Amino acid sequence: MTDPINPYTFQEKPLLVVISGPSGVGKDVTILRMKELGYPFHFVVTATTRPRRPGEIDGKDYFFVSMQEFAKMIDENELLEYAVVYGDYKGIPKAQVREALASGKDVIMRIDVQGAETIRKMVPQAVLIYLSAESEEALVHRLQQRKTEEAGQLAIRIATARKEQEKVAMFDYLVINRQDHLDETCATIAAIIRAERHRIHRLEVTL
Amino acid sequence: MTDPINPYTFQEKPLLVVISGPSGVGKDVTILRMKELGYPFHFVVTATTRPRRPGEIDGKDYFFVSMQEFAKMIDENELLEYAVVYGDYKGIPKAQVREALASGKDVIMRIDVQGAETIRKMVPQAVLIYLSAESEEALVHRLQQRKTEEAGQLAIRIATARKEQEKVAMFDYLVINRQDHLDETCATIAAIIRAERHRIHRLEVTL
Repeated sequence: MTDPINPYTFQEKPLLVVISGPSGVGKDVTILRMKELGYPFHFVVTATTRPRRPGEIDGKDYFFVSMQEFAKMIDENELLEYAVVYGDYKGIPKAQVREALASGKDVIMRIDVQGAETIRKMVPQAVLIYLSAESEEALVHRLQQRKTEEAGQLAIRIATARKEQEKVAMFDYLVINRQDHLDETCATIAAIIRAERHRIHRLEVTL
Repeated sequence: MTDPINPYTFQEKPLLVVISGPSGVGKDVTILRMKELGYPFHFVVTATTRPRRPGEIDGKDYFFVSMQEFAKMIDENELLEYAVVYGDYKGIPKAQVREALASGKDVIMRIDVQGAETIRKMVPQAVLIYLSAESEEALVHRLQQRKTEEAGQLAIRIATARKEQEKVAMFDYLVINRQDHLDETCATIAAIIRAERHRIHRLEVTL
């Protein structure tokens, strides 16, 4: 029975939320912190061929796979989306997304900017958030702190970040991930997800 | 100087946020609670000819004015918008909005549904939130609790609420103000405002 003053239901499908932005902006750290803070989202685990960084856990932060294993995933059509990012392959296992959707929770995926473009086309109703550093200086500082970067890599990442910011109009939201304000970044992302659940265009009228 | 990876600034103008919805849904109580909780917004005080309810404070909850005073405000073009709501006049003093905008804080206005329609035309970038009860039964219950309503009034308010919900598509967000979940309603409104500040279409590129 439809209620005469509240005939609306929001779509029950979980939201698909993409956290993107240039290399070094802090996508991984942000997602790790959101997990720590206990936000009730489903975080998709990406498969990657890049070397594991100190403290990262296989199957939690990423699935760390060999080039051979990654090739097999591509072959067997097991990836929703994949891309080469600075020589390392990264991809989203379809099984992960299926599991996420089945959980009924809103789903957060971390994807590089090219991947976000693919998701935008595949899932137009996805919520795309572009994470940016406050300045180029701050981004350089972050990349240098990682200590996993060679000098040539750094120059390429900065040049790429400059190109990537031109794509910001494709996104729904811009969040500046300010140094030492990680919890603020997490709270803003959580607010965006909460607000999106109430957007009128996500309404379905019960007839 | 423009930063090569973050050439964006968000518009500095405060957001204009409209809280609307049917009579009895809890607009006043929600705004009162947001003030209590210390949310950093500027709450516009509406002028009204309706009688003061127990506990309401003149100049804080409303400006309680006589019909003569209200007529003068209309005459002198001092109202941004006004409407007759169940025989009582309600209007937004322009001075209030000017003061609000000067404060630099995001501005929250409580307006009935007809008034929200006017604001949508005047200020297209305003954020319009429709507050709804979870069901007609809940709305009837709320109106009865007020004890300021006559039986005829109640029937009219319910019939109007049924009509008003048809206008929900004009709004940006729908928030269900569930009985005994007032703080949840307040937190959702605050999340919407926080998220809106990060929407890409509010970006300005610094050139």
